[in-house]
Amino acid sequence: MLNSLDLLKMRTIEWDYSNHTLRMIDQRLLPGELRYLCLENVDQVAEAIRSMAVRGAPAIGATAAFGLALAAQKSPASDILDLQRDLQLAIRKLLSTRPTAANLKWALQRVLKIAQSESEWDVAQIRFAVLAEAQKIADEDVKTNQQIAQFGATLIDDGDTIIHHCNTGALATVDWGTALGVIRYAHEEGKKIHVLVDETRPRLQGARLTAWELEQYHISYEIITDNAAGYFLRSGKAQKVFFGADRMASNGDVANKIGTYMLALAANDNQVPAYCALPLSTIDLSLTDGSKIPIEERNPTEVLQLQIDGLPVVPSGAKAKNPAFDVTPASLITAVITEIGIIYPPFSENLHRALYGK
Amino acid sequence: MLNSLDLLKMRTIEWDYSNHTLRMIDQRLLPGELRYLCLENVDQVAEAIRSMAVRGAPAIGATAAFGLALAAQKSPASDILDLQRDLQLAIRKLLSTRPTAANLKWALQRVLKIAQSESEWDVAQIRFAVLAEAQKIADEDVKTNQQIAQFGATLIDDGDTIIHHCNTGALATVDWGTALGVIRYAHEEGKKIHVLVDETRPRLQGARLTAWELEQYHISYEIITDNAAGYFLRSGKAQKVFFGADRMASNGDVANKIGTYMLALAANDNQVPAYCALPLSTIDLSLTDGSKIPIEERNPTEVLQLQIDGLPVVPSGAKAKNPAFDVTPASLITAVITEIGIIYPPFSENLHRALYGK
Repeated sequence: MLNSLDLLKMRTIEWDYSNHTLRMIDQRLLPGELRYLCLENVDQVAEAIRSMAVRGAPAIGATAAFGLALAAQKSPASDILDLQRDLQLAIRKLLSTRPTAANLKWALQRVLKIAQSESEWDVAQIRFAVLAEAQKIADEDVKTNQQIAQFGATLIDDGDTIIHHCNTGALATVDWGTALGVIRYAHEEGKKIHVLVDETRPRLQGARLTAWELEQYHISYEIITDNAAGYFLRSGKAQKVFFGADRMASNGDVANKIGTYMLALAANDNQVPAYCALPLSTIDLSLTDGSKIPIEERNPTEVLQLQIDGLPVVPSGAKAKNPAFDVTPASLITAVITEIGIIYPPFSENLHRALYGK
Repeated sequence: MLNSLDLLKMRTIEWDYSNHTLRMIDQRLLPGELRYLCLENVDQVAEAIRSMAVRGAPAIGATAAFGLALAAQKSPASDILDLQRDLQLAIRKLLSTRPTAANLKWALQRVLKIAQSESEWDVAQIRFAVLAEAQKIADEDVKTNQQIAQFGATLIDDGDTIIHHCNTGALATVDWGTALGVIRYAHEEGKKIHVLVDETRPRLQGARLTAWELEQYHISYEIITDNAAGYFLRSGKAQKVFFGADRMASNGDVANKIGTYMLALAANDNQVPAYCALPLSTIDLSLTDGSKIPIEERNPTEVLQLQIDGLPVVPSGAKAKNPAFDVTPASLITAVITEIGIIYPPFSENLHRALYGK
């Protein structure tokens, strides 16, 4: 039986039933400071997602669901039509935060469906049902990740050095994590593992968050610059590559944190397996391929704000481009690790079968 | 006729004939501050190379040659044997600074050969000859780069967006530059060019130095994270990739700043040409392939020292690996741009012909 992320004594995102607020770790402050945000309304939730106080596709999904629960709780509506209108407004706000992660829309649709499911419910019953469904999404996310971890760990051998991109741990989910959960599970099984942590420019989720999580789990690691992964792969110093996903199209093309494509390419060029770990909720079968996935362009400041010794790095007035995700073609992915098992190519066929059982 | 880097009103490295010192830009302080170092002995030169106050294979070569000139000037030797011994000591110091750049050894061997060329020379004559040869290396470097620029510019089309890795401009050479010299020449010919500047972790030579040079030349650019190059290549937003070289083996495998391999791989995966610009002095025909090139491992602090808003990014106690170069296989290189023309595959044959004329 797996333990939750003991170090935090809580989940990344958690509904506070005494205050009817959403409590979450402010990931912008890690690893320097472990501070909690207490969000009281849907605008605050939208801002937390937009500013990446919470990030990671599964965590964004659960956060958005709780955001809708907050909207329902705080709505002054006394009739169903008004409440539904407030929920629709909240959905629009939440959907506008970040365009790439599939789980955002998936979670909101799931909660909305419940809110509209019983025509005889009164506003109190809808409020209750919305919160219950958000809580269910969060609980399921933890269980899903534990299943991903168990399936995925079978792919890791004792002695492996693994390159990992971005953060896909407890912080990227409600708890436990996807790709990093796999690594953690293998470690807890007693396998000796070393992780080369891509720092993951520009937001440095690897250097900040994954390194911090690995410290807590006592897993051996070293941080590398993203552009060094190829060196380690080409010189035979890494045996596996693991990453998560923000949205996977029906053919297996996957949008994930910027840099995933180049990493998967380098793995492929050196016959090193590249594994993508995700919950089925990250798969968007409505898209035929990765070219249809919207790629978020974030503020150039994220690229330009680096400092060394307290001094800026770039010339004043420098411009930057900052795509937050890229698309890795399915052909570069060795297997997709999900809560129902490991899916191998051909993905067009096998992803559909995984989701629909046929 | 090409102008020198007017903005600096000097070369990156320059012998000061009034004080018998080596004057160079301290590149560690750019772009914040343009300050000059005045080096008085070979130990200071070795430290300047090691600490990357000066960097870039051609600049390192010329600096080392001037370092040997300083050793000759400052040697108290009154007979030839003592002077030759001091020169050998200086060569050992300079060679130990950085292992990858071919030009370091090439320049030192060239100066040493002159120092040993005339058995009837006295110490004053040797001192003079050593300095004269170092000056000749520096002068030739500028001319060589201008020839590279002219040949290479024929590969650039009006309207091109070019991804450029690290810094290969005037600052990486005595003046003008290799790959960035090509870009600058095409710009001065009137071609409309946009440069996507890889920031080039960990030392950020792209974000610091290339962006700064492009500002001076009024060439349109945007900084991108290294891991974003694949996104721009895959989405058809870049038409050419340019980089320099620290050492090329006889088969065309090339050691260059870490990240070059992944960049060339992504270019190749998208049928975008990847051009390597170098002086012939960077080619080391004594090595059959890139696996023989020594790869420098630098201090992990270079990876870990990032700050945002004055705060460290990584957890305290975090470890890192920091290989400074990687090897790009010849198969990923479209053409090599040299001072005697553009060399195409098969490189094993054509590099040899370029160097030996047969």
